[in-house]
Amino acid sequence: MNADILVIGAQGAGMSAASRAKRKNKNLDVLVLEKGPYVSVGTCGLPYFIGDLVREAKKMEMHDVAFFREQREIPILTRHEVIGIDPGAKRVTALSLDEQKEKVFRYDKLIIGTGSTANRPGISGEDLSRVFVLKTLEDGIRIKSLIDQEQPKNAVIIGAGVIGLEMAEAFARRGLHVTLLKRPGSILRMLDDDMTRLVEEELHRQGVDVCLDVKIQKINGIDGRAVSVTCSGQDYPADLVLLATGASPSTGLARSAGLAMGPFGDIVVDEAMTTSDPNIFAAGDCVAQIHRVSQQAVYLPRGTTANKQGRVAGENAAGGCDRFTGVVGTSVAKIFDLHMASTGLNEKAAREAGFDTAAVQIAHPSHGQTYPNPPPEPITVRMVLEKRTGRLLGGQMIGKFGVGKRIDVLATAVTHGLTVNQIGDLDLSYSPPFAPLWDPILVAANAAAKVI
Amino acid sequence: MNADILVIGAQGAGMSAASRAKRKNKNLDVLVLEKGPYVSVGTCGLPYFIGDLVREAKKMEMHDVAFFREQREIPILTRHEVIGIDPGAKRVTALSLDEQKEKVFRYDKLIIGTGSTANRPGISGEDLSRVFVLKTLEDGIRIKSLIDQEQPKNAVIIGAGVIGLEMAEAFARRGLHVTLLKRPGSILRMLDDDMTRLVEEELHRQGVDVCLDVKIQKINGIDGRAVSVTCSGQDYPADLVLLATGASPSTGLARSAGLAMGPFGDIVVDEAMTTSDPNIFAAGDCVAQIHRVSQQAVYLPRGTTANKQGRVAGENAAGGCDRFTGVVGTSVAKIFDLHMASTGLNEKAAREAGFDTAAVQIAHPSHGQTYPNPPPEPITVRMVLEKRTGRLLGGQMIGKFGVGKRIDVLATAVTHGLTVNQIGDLDLSYSPPFAPLWDPILVAANAAAKVI
Repeated sequence: MNADILVIGAQGAGMSAASRAKRKNKNLDVLVLEKGPYVSVGTCGLPYFIGDLVREAKKMEMHDVAFFREQREIPILTRHEVIGIDPGAKRVTALSLDEQKEKVFRYDKLIIGTGSTANRPGISGEDLSRVFVLKTLEDGIRIKSLIDQEQPKNAVIIGAGVIGLEMAEAFARRGLHVTLLKRPGSILRMLDDDMTRLVEEELHRQGVDVCLDVKIQKINGIDGRAVSVTCSGQDYPADLVLLATGASPSTGLARSAGLAMGPFGDIVVDEAMTTSDPNIFAAGDCVAQIHRVSQQAVYLPRGTTANKQGRVAGENAAGGCDRFTGVVGTSVAKIFDLHMASTGLNEKAAREAGFDTAAVQIAHPSHGQTYPNPPPEPITVRMVLEKRTGRLLGGQMIGKFGVGKRIDVLATAVTHGLTVNQIGDLDLSYSPPFAPLWDPILVAANAAAKVI
Repeated sequence: MNADILVIGAQGAGMSAASRAKRKNKNLDVLVLEKGPYVSVGTCGLPYFIGDLVREAKKMEMHDVAFFREQREIPILTRHEVIGIDPGAKRVTALSLDEQKEKVFRYDKLIIGTGSTANRPGISGEDLSRVFVLKTLEDGIRIKSLIDQEQPKNAVIIGAGVIGLEMAEAFARRGLHVTLLKRPGSILRMLDDDMTRLVEEELHRQGVDVCLDVKIQKINGIDGRAVSVTCSGQDYPADLVLLATGASPSTGLARSAGLAMGPFGDIVVDEAMTTSDPNIFAAGDCVAQIHRVSQQAVYLPRGTTANKQGRVAGENAAGGCDRFTGVVGTSVAKIFDLHMASTGLNEKAAREAGFDTAAVQIAHPSHGQTYPNPPPEPITVRMVLEKRTGRLLGGQMIGKFGVGKRIDVLATAVTHGLTVNQIGDLDLSYSPPFAPLWDPILVAANAAAKVI
């Protein structure tokens, strides 16, 4: 089979690329190969699927195969696992999992969107049943089925990044007692320590047992099933264990094809999302990004980044000329009743990037005291700045509400190199239901202006 | 009596100026004269006070006289109405309303924060009792007392700016039927017509009778009390009438003192908030602002602007060197179940300012479909851009939630001249409870990029 543009992977990057290429030139044959049964999965929503806010697995697809076929004229072959890329012959070999036969696809341009794989930390017992990772919808279905069918009582989460903490909430919502184990290093490493403390307090309030800086020794099993985790000499009962220790680029195919690889095991791409082979593009979690503040390569897999990169790859594969300009690592997460957001560099990352930094941290009400419905709650804002110039390098926010999109003001400021004085001068929106007279951002910027 | 820094007006601008001056140099004698009984009133919260979300008038003061005296060592003389400024002798004469006697105050530096006065449109009958304006807390108390004591049934609001619409909600909350009358011109003139329609629909849904483009003939009274409003030949029953037709600078004192006056009846100031007299500063609703997009003088009274300008005036009166950089006219308001926000220039204003403009308008979900708690609602985003360069000139948003602080991203972009391509590249926060994968801002920016 031949395709003008062949896409490997029908998730965020791949489908964004395919859609963009087809929109650019509807006469192109665009074909997508996907190893799994689901396409265009809203992976970031998996904690809400497991938490049962979303009941059906099917609803986790942003769009399904029929939508892409009928609305966008993009055929997708699901359950087709690519097993080899031959860049010289411009040929891809895939195994049809249902037919159990190999098929060869010729391409003019190839777009790789193979995503990432959950890290396995190498703990004894991590292959026992009831030990899970959470990366795909299939992973989510497995975890949810176990909860539905066996009503487990105790969950142990290993790792304390965004997914670990969102899953602590999901498990608690499903009635499980949660123990969160974290090897040395802080929780939510995008935050500085003075901010993570607020999250730790919330976890305690919500009844999550948090054990930080522990040595995770082994996962113990009976009859091949995990039953507890031994950690710094103590045993924690575990009807299920979630390994939430990050993800790495899925790039075995690209490596075997001889494409240039980067320091994170990522496929090297330029701003046009072109790999070391001019006919092959890559986008999404299988590539790294340039951080717009440090100008260094980082590996910050995000659905938003994957979609933006896919769009650039698709445009260029279809003959266009677009550029992906990089990231500032913006994050937001709901962790029980707290909202946590960050953008740019934290203090540690800013120092490592060679900046002479200062940081300020303030707390100020979310909105006006004359609109007590609900009453205002403090928003803690931390700003990391370059001491000499006052340029904002990063921002962090934690609060019960009003954090999710406020961080985007700082993402914009960080991206365009605004100083804290310029931020303090911003004409931000005010009305009692939405903000206090001095928005927490302005209060933080004014405090930061004093330390320049 | 002598003061190093004398401040006229103990509201946003005045108290912000006084506080800043005292912080700059605590040895300065700073004295504030206020005509009314209340200080530092959160005027923007008056609709929520009248709507009874806030019960006590006292709670409408952000800080009270005792706070300023004890915490900031700033004495305030309330019920002291300034009746004359003598710039030559550096002397102010005030009438103590309680003592009914005149007092003279000498100053080294004077800061004028006399605010604004509600416009009276000049309709026959507008002086009847039960015809109100809403500018001060005393106005609010009068309206609220009438509702508490007489349980009126019908309110007519003349004018359809933010205050008129917020008051429609407040009256409806108190059980009144509301008729909104608007003379020729659109409601919420910061919005383009395609956006105001969404607000009109909401008013209809909420049972408000909206009569636009009408000729308001007279307010009819019996025994000196308003009872109905005649408008385009029809009579609307009115147990109370609210005139919400904007505000103008309160600058009689400054004019009499010979200070230079601007085109809005405003006191002319420079970036340092200095008036035409180098020893006199002015800040807040009694001055105009420079719009950072059009670079033209505008009169956009806002609590946030008053506070920022007050801070600059206070700093400079105390010997410092600060600058007020101007506004972009950012607004946000809750109008029943809709949130409305805008920043920068709308299409009409952009054309009038000489820009070759284009506009795009899209609707996109507030957050991810995998977080249906509550389900996502569309946010309508309108962007006004300079066609040649793609520079964002203004933005407007309407939705049920997620609008209030999202507009601040556009306020930041407009202020710093970002193009819609640059906005489309922003690394904005994403997680299903907070945003869809493509934030409505990015969707609008990508749509706008196509019309450059």
